[in-house]
Amino acid sequence: MSTEALLRQISFIKEIDKLKYIQRKTSLFNSDRNENDAEHSWHLAMMTIVLAQHSDKPVDVLKVLKMVLIHDIVEIDAGDTFMYDTQKDHTNTDEELAAAKRIFGLLPEGQAAEFIAIWQEFEEGKTDEAKFARSMDRLEPLLQNTSNNGGTWREFDVPYRKVYQKKKVIREGSSTIWEYAEGLINESVEKGILKR
Amino acid sequence: MSTEALLRQISFIKEIDKLKYIQRKTSLFNSDRNENDAEHSWHLAMMTIVLAQHSDKPVDVLKVLKMVLIHDIVEIDAGDTFMYDTQKDHTNTDEELAAAKRIFGLLPEGQAAEFIAIWQEFEEGKTDEAKFARSMDRLEPLLQNTSNNGGTWREFDVPYRKVYQKKKVIREGSSTIWEYAEGLINESVEKGILKR
Repeated sequence: MSTEALLRQISFIKEIDKLKYIQRKTSLFNSDRNENDAEHSWHLAMMTIVLAQHSDKPVDVLKVLKMVLIHDIVEIDAGDTFMYDTQKDHTNTDEELAAAKRIFGLLPEGQAAEFIAIWQEFEEGKTDEAKFARSMDRLEPLLQNTSNNGGTWREFDVPYRKVYQKKKVIREGSSTIWEYAEGLINESVEKGILKR
Repeated sequence: MSTEALLRQISFIKEIDKLKYIQRKTSLFNSDRNENDAEHSWHLAMMTIVLAQHSDKPVDVLKVLKMVLIHDIVEIDAGDTFMYDTQKDHTNTDEELAAAKRIFGLLPEGQAAEFIAIWQEFEEGKTDEAKFARSMDRLEPLLQNTSNNGGTWREFDVPYRKVYQKKKVIREGSSTIWEYAEGLINESVEKGILKR
């Protein structure tokens, strides 16, 4: 391994520090302090190692971890897109692809290609690993909102139907976790923290 | 998998949110904003997937990732111990062990035992995985301090000798990374941001 490769890796490691400044709309548990993308990514990684056994299909846990650790890095350039944004859909936009090429492109060539491919696999959501990773990404804010008296659902007036539609992605990864998540959503309606 | 196991896992996932409030002494890159333990753990995980190829010994990357993701969770109860603290040595204290038992003990039994064992393996630093994980844990604040005009070295008046002694743990994990790190330390003395 050449020194040049290490120097490129170090410059990438310094660059991604900026993820700690990207604020999400959701707040920490029982708190009104917004979560940032680095904290969110760490939490998804922890959820992955704790919950992987509930995946409906056997998954390569290392690959799922890579996905959740890097999935939001493009937001350093492209910014956070709120899940319930009515103007802009959270899809693999051109802006995000340019961000992936710039930021992962700081790495040595082979590694850059690997990271871009993993990020794209996550975004496409077709493989078993991507499905499980995406179910983690949907579960965390559900847990946060139910701990925060409705959180962003109440703040942005998001109705049950829209929450249900976004959250059912969890079912693609794990029927056990989905059963639990669906229960939480229904309970939230009953409690009046999520409007019908 | 019983529902009871999932409920225990969810309560652990909620509990570890507190890691986001544990402030470290070191600051983000080119910043005076303190880093918190969740951000730090995410950054070590990213460094692990980027730099694992430089490990002197072949390592189980998934295990290293588990180590760096959970290594500071005990600080939720025990608090952050500063690496250059002159009063309290950063070792596997009784307080940290009690914290590990309480927090990991929220998980289903088998998983709790696994997490405690992984944390202890990291703390002991004897296996190849623990050595590499610890080298990541020492490298990040070195990169931060050199980006911050000396950072905590200057703030707490830490001399070269002490920095060198703490940082040489990096050599146990990777001679390539150590060579780079040693260069950074020497350069810091030359620049006057680390006192002789």
